[in-house]
Order: sequence, then C-alpha cells, then structure tokens
Amino acid sequence: MIPAILSWNEIQPIVAKVDLVKAMEKAFIAYSQKRAVIPPVGELTFEEPPGDVHLKYGYLKEGDYYVVKIASGFYDNPKLGIPSSQGLMLLFIQSTGELAAVLLDEGNLTDLRTAAAGAVAAKHLGPAEVTCIGIVGTGIQAFEQLRALQPITACRKVALWGRTPDHVAAFKNKATSLGFEITEAASIEDLCKQSNLIVTTTPSPTPLIQAGWVQPGTHLTAVGADTAEKQELDSALLGKASFVVVDSLSQSRTRGEVYQAVKANQLSHDSVIELGNAIEAATKEERNNNDITIADLTGVAVQDLAIAQAVFMGANSAA
Amino acid sequence: MIPAILSWNEIQPIVAKVDLVKAMEKAFIAYSQKRAVIPPVGELTFEEPPGDVHLKYGYLKEGDYYVVKIASGFYDNPKLGIPSSQGLMLLFIQSTGELAAVLLDEGNLTDLRTAAAGAVAAKHLGPAEVTCIGIVGTGIQAFEQLRALQPITACRKVALWGRTPDHVAAFKNKATSLGFEITEAASIEDLCKQSNLIVTTTPSPTPLIQAGWVQPGTHLTAVGADTAEKQELDSALLGKASFVVVDSLSQSRTRGEVYQAVKANQLSHDSVIELGNAIEAATKEERNNNDITIADLTGVAVQDLAIAQAVFMGANSAA
Repeated sequence: MIPAILSWNEIQPIVAKVDLVKAMEKAFIAYSQKRAVIPPVGELTFEEPPGDVHLKYGYLKEGDYYVVKIASGFYDNPKLGIPSSQGLMLLFIQSTGELAAVLLDEGNLTDLRTAAAGAVAAKHLGPAEVTCIGIVGTGIQAFEQLRALQPITACRKVALWGRTPDHVAAFKNKATSLGFEITEAASIEDLCKQSNLIVTTTPSPTPLIQAGWVQPGTHLTAVGADTAEKQELDSALLGKASFVVVDSLSQSRTRGEVYQAVKANQLSHDSVIELGNAIEAATKEERNNNDITIADLTGVAVQDLAIAQAVFMGANSAA
Repeated sequence: MIPAILSWNEIQPIVAKVDLVKAMEKAFIAYSQKRAVIPPVGELTFEEPPGDVHLKYGYLKEGDYYVVKIASGFYDNPKLGIPSSQGLMLLFIQSTGELAAVLLDEGNLTDLRTAAAGAVAAKHLGPAEVTCIGIVGTGIQAFEQLRALQPITACRKVALWGRTPDHVAAFKNKATSLGFEITEAASIEDLCKQSNLIVTTTPSPTPLIQAGWVQPGTHLTAVGADTAEKQELDSALLGKASFVVVDSLSQSRTRGEVYQAVKANQLSHDSVIELGNAIEAATKEERNNNDITIADLTGVAVQDLAIAQAVFMGANSAA
C-alpha cells in the first residue's frame, strides 16, 4: 500500500477540528485500564550540541493501528532559527505492519497532545475557581498549554515568567491576542504567590519552584521534565501535595518529577495516581479548597496514537 | 527543512550501486570499537495475527546523522499477497534533530543489510573452500543471503530446504537464473550432510538443525532468530562450535541463538566474539579445517545507519 504522507500545512487544518481534550481523556482511560500495549520509551541523547530524542510507540489491543513517534528537543536550535522541537509520527496497520501514514508534523502534534494533556489535568484536578494562571516558560509548549486552557477555565488573568525578555514580550503579544491579560512576574516566587493554576514547561535540570512558594489550593502541572535528568519542582512540594497524578505510573519510575521526589525520599510511589484512573475516579470531587495537587506529565504513546489516528481519519474523510 | 522522501522504486537503483559488504564491515568495526551509540532494540509484538516489530536506532559519535528503523515481520501476510517484511528507515540530522530523509523501502533495505551481514560473516569466518551452500528457508531473506554470497565464494552448488513445495520451486527458478545449481534437500539433516556453508533464515520457534547433523569444517550463519522466542540451531551445536560470533554482544544477552544456548547452559557468554572484533582479529586465519563456526545475527542499528546513509548520499549525488 502507498502510505499517506502529510505535511504540517496539511495536518494543521485537520487537527484544528479535533477535540483533543476528549481524545486525550479517552486515551488516558484506555491506558490506565490496561487496554494499551506501551513499551518503555526509547531514548537517544546527544551532548554537543545538547539534545534528546524520544521514541514512543504502542497500540490499543482493540485498535487497528500502531504508532511510532519520534520527537526531539535540541535546545540550541533557536540560535540557528530552527525550532527546538522536531519529529514525526508514523501510523502502521496492526494486522500487517504496513505503513499507513507518515505525519511530517515537525514536532507540532507532540506539542498539541502535550498541551491537551495539561488541559485534561487542569479539568480533572484543578481548583474549582481559577483566580490566576501561572505560566513558567515562554516557548511553544508554554503558549500551547495556555491556549489549551481556554475552554477549561474562564480565567484570563496570567502571570508569566521567562528567562529571556524578548521571549516574554513575544509571548505576551501572542497571548494577548487570544484574550488573555498577561502580567510579567518579578520572579517565579512572585508568580507562585499570584497563581492557583500553574503550568511549568521548561527543560530545567534543577527545581524552579520551591515547596514554600506555592499557595494552598493550587494545582500545578509540570510538563517539562521528561527524562531522568530534568526537574522543575522541588521534591518537597510533591511530598506536601494532597494528590500527585502522573500520566504513566511506569514511566514515572524512570523519569519526571515523581522519579526525582521518590529518589529524594519525599514521596512514596504507592501514593501516586495515574491520570486515567483519576479521571474515572473523579478525583477532583475529593479535592478540598486548600489542597495542593500536582500532575507530572512525561507524555505517553497512547496520546500520540490518539492524535495521529484522529489526523489520519480526518485526512481520509476530507479526501 | 523539507525531508527527502524516497520510494522503493527510487531507492532500488541507488542501493544497487553500494558496496554493502564493505559498508557493513565498516559499520560492525565501528560498533565493536564502541564508536556507536546503540540503545536496546525496541519491540512490539502482536498475537492475532502474529507479528513482531523491531525499532532499531542509534548513531556514530563522529557521524552527522542518526537513524531510526522500523521493521516488522507479520508471517501470515503472504496469505493476503503482502510481503511479511515491512518497514521504513528515517535519517535525522544529529546536531538539530531535523528529519533529513524518509526511506519508504518497505523492509527491503533491512533485507539487504541483513544479507550483506551474512556475506560478511561468510567472508571472515567461512571455510576456505566452500563445497556446497546450504540454504534453510525459501523466503526473501533466503534468496538475498544466497545472492549476497555470490561475490564471496566461487561455489555455485546449493542444497535448499523449505517447507512449502511452491516456494521451493519459485526459489529454484530465481536462483538458477543467477547461475546457482540448486538441489532440493530431502531433509534438513540431508542438507547439513551435503553443505559446509549453511545459512538459516526462518522464524522458527524450535531448533531446526541438530548438533549431530553438522559436518566438521562447516560454518553456519543464523539470521532468523531475532527475538527471545525464536531459535533455529540446537543449543548443543553452539556448545560444540570452535568460534561463536554475534553481531552484537549486548543484543545476544536477550535474543537469538546465543541467548538460547547460554540459557540452556551449553555456552558461556564470555566465549562469544563480536563480529566487528572478529573482522579485525582476522579470526578466519585461526580457523582449522575441521572447525565448526557459527555467526548469530540479530541485526544492529549501525547496519541500518550505514545503508540509510549510503542511499541518502547516493540520492543527493544523483540529484
């Protein structure tokens, strides 16, 4: 068979019509119900220039396709005018191994499905009333996270923190045009004091948010740390949280905030809840107004499968 | 950047001009000299219909690209008129993660690089004078192995064994037109009695060749078993061999003939030699006329990198 080959220009209008929050909820539930086969994440790392590549792959047992997704972060790329995120998704027929689709999305579908997962976490774990959204980081993922929150909360007040003034200004412009009211926070501590829904999106190798800075009632979603080396949240903060939720319990044994907090003896892995289970158990209803809750997202291949299939189906129905 | 996308029709004339034996020798030497970064093989398995998918990926430290190769075997495909091997190769720029090339080779490049590795093994480990080549299996890989042996040995006598009479007849026709003289063996035992260079190419779950059947002075290359479940050679045969060579020592701890023989206590892993080292050490010169030698090939991503790069360079110089 001849595979469908779609460029990002072709994918963009198709994916814009997909309800990604719904697709991710379904994907996480299937994953937590053990209806998916998802091997450990494959990884390649590079030192000079620094970069990491993740291979995520798997399938739903009752499904028709398996996915292989390659996504990379080369953090010096912007110096060359190239986005740091790169990658593509491949969809194969589960019964024959034939290649059905090559989605040349340049890493954009990974950005969208990650942002949609953040929205799922905020929807099911976040405070009933969001007073201010705190966004740490000014990259594509930071912006997509904010955009994905638009249908989840009525709050349009945003405290923003970024290292680079130019990037802060660019983010402000883009987000203002979406209807958000952006204030630059003087520090991450200041951002934490203002916000009760915080999203962190950086590849930081050391914690950016200290336990003492976070106000009671805050929900934090950390999406930046997806390797064993990265960490955005002080481990003591995870120890203090009422609920710690991860997208994948198995991945959280080797990467992300939970991995760090367990290693630092601040958290027991047994107390961590998987997002698909949290959705089904309606964890949000158990949330008290003063609870601190955390979602640690490292990204799961079921998300890639869900978004790739949605795009492929969309392309087929348009053709 | 816009990746080069090549179909098998475009790849075929390019790869035909590549000296694959030389490319594989260089790749195996680089690998054994620890100049490559090759993570463990990724794997997906399917039960109904049965299939396995391998993800092989990695890079040379001094190189410009990293490769990701997806190859599958769905053994019921031929019933549907579809080749059992499927797959593609992807080449990315090592310094940015940008996708450079999508090689839609439909699994053919994997077949060719595997066959070339068989030729490398025969060249560096095989008997000085090949009297008859034994080929076990009649699939594409069996045929490519034989074709790859053409420049390695002057022997044109072939004993062939296959389960399906139609496939045996088709193989005979194709191989005869290449100048080989094919005799169908009455049994695998009979094939072993006649041949001193044997290549096994089946996805058998149980050993096909018993230790007592193999004549002194024979070299065997086993390419079929690339998972923890498959096995073509009786473990006692590996115990009996003077040299056991693998393409990858680390992969042989979890898959292939060596994995089975070590598990069955017939072989010590410490005695196994890596192919790249065997090439450099000129192991063939240490071979006595009566030695039985074995090459167990599970396929290494350096091979995929080498063939994908050769094709990409060939396409660029033609363009």
